[in-house]
Parts: sequence; C-alpha cells; structure tokens
Amino acid sequence: MTDHTDNRIEELSAAECMQLLRHSSYVGRIGFILDDRPMILPVNYLAEEQSLVFASLDGAKLHALAGGADVVFEVDEARPLYHAGWSVLVRGRAHEVTDERDIEALRRGPLQSWAAVHDAHWIRISIDEISGRRVPER
Amino acid sequence: MTDHTDNRIEELSAAECMQLLRHSSYVGRIGFILDDRPMILPVNYLAEEQSLVFASLDGAKLHALAGGADVVFEVDEARPLYHAGWSVLVRGRAHEVTDERDIEALRRGPLQSWAAVHDAHWIRISIDEISGRRVPER
Repeated sequence: MTDHTDNRIEELSAAECMQLLRHSSYVGRIGFILDDRPMILPVNYLAEEQSLVFASLDGAKLHALAGGADVVFEVDEARPLYHAGWSVLVRGRAHEVTDERDIEALRRGPLQSWAAVHDAHWIRISIDEISGRRVPER
Repeated sequence: MTDHTDNRIEELSAAECMQLLRHSSYVGRIGFILDDRPMILPVNYLAEEQSLVFASLDGAKLHALAGGADVVFEVDEARPLYHAGWSVLVRGRAHEVTDERDIEALRRGPLQSWAAVHDAHWIRISIDEISGRRVPER
C-alpha cells in the first residue's frame, strides 16, 4: 500500500498552490458530506488570501455546509496531449455570507457566477490547508 | 431556500450525461469520505456503460474506498469566455479490481494513467445514478 517513487508526481509548495488557486482556474469543485454521503458541486469562485468565495442557487444542498462544515475544494488543469497537469486541494470550513454589506461588495466584485444570478447564496470557505501536485510534461 | 427559475441551468438527460462522461472528458474527480471527512481526488479515467475505472498510486487514500464505499464522481467542462459549461455527477460504489486477468486487460487497454505507471491500484466505480447540468452560452 506504500506509494512508489517511480511515478511522475511532484508536490507543489503552498505558494505555488495559492498562485494556481488564485490565478489559474475559473471553476473549482466543493466536496462535502450531505446526509452522510459524499457530494461534489462544481462552482465558479474567487480566491483571496485567506479564503475563497462562491455563489450558488443550490440552497438545499448548500444549507448542509453553511454553518461551518468541514469541506474540501479542488481545482485542476489537464493537458491531455502531454499527459500532464496539476491539481490543488484546499481544506477548510464553509460559512454562508450573511452580512448585507459583504454581500453587496461581492455582488459588485469580479465574480459573476455563470449560473446563479439572483437570489444566490454566497458561501465563503476558509483556506486552512492547501496542497497540490503536478504531473510535468514528459 | 427554494431554487428560482430565472437561472440559466438546464438539466441533462441520462443519455447526454453518459455521452459526456464517456467521450468528452479525460479527468474526473472522485469524492469520498476518508476518516469522517470529505475528500476529492482527481484521476484520469475510462468510462464504460455500467461503470468507470481508474488507476492510482494513492494506496493509502484508496484503501478507504476499495471495498464498496459510497462515492461520487464528477466531470465538467467550462468555457469561461462564454460563461458556459456543463457538469456530470455519477453516484456509485467503488471496488478495487483484484482479478489478475481484469488487471492485465486494463493494462493493455486505452487508459494510460498519466501519473501512475507501475504498482497502481485499479478501482472500478459502478454507475448507479447519473445526472448533469448545462449552462448554455448566452
């Protein structure tokens, strides 16, 4: 069950991970537990230094994680032609943004959620841990 | 908490979802529960009619799901310029492939895992439920 060293995976530094999370991806996937089962929801997001934020209309699903739920957030990029790519994983807690001024600022900000225009819930995830990997081009 | 109808999300049929899963993506993300916490792992995969399969060197993480664990598997594609995209979610059970003939066939098959070359564990996920959504171009 031990991992062998003859693979092509390289670990990324936290700084590299933050750079990729903040500037190299539009869409990430939030992983959480809903009714004791794993769930993944893709969202477009905005990452800041300490947290990332997204808007969603999935009220019923997001209700499960609005109050401090333990979540993961994943972004990746694949270059199929080269069998190469990278991925970054954030671990943190999710909270719904409820302060009206915060919500107004988010609405005026650069994050235009593609699907959720009105009546969206804004969720913020703390970046408590961040890690990543790269499979370099051969 | 109810979803409103003034959003741009369209539900996909199961046939559309299978088509996208089988022919439109190289990399998917498996969501599972590890030590009572949510986990996401990106993998490149091959989808057949009833199941999908991938190889990974993450022995320690995958041990948690080799014996019939409840998992989700997500693929998506984003077209940022158009604020458009689609996503497909599979729900199923994960089992490690242990039959040597199956493993040999998988090794000879079209799935060349980018990172995991040797000593990989092969995991098969049943496609018990499949659903998906599209955000069409404006």
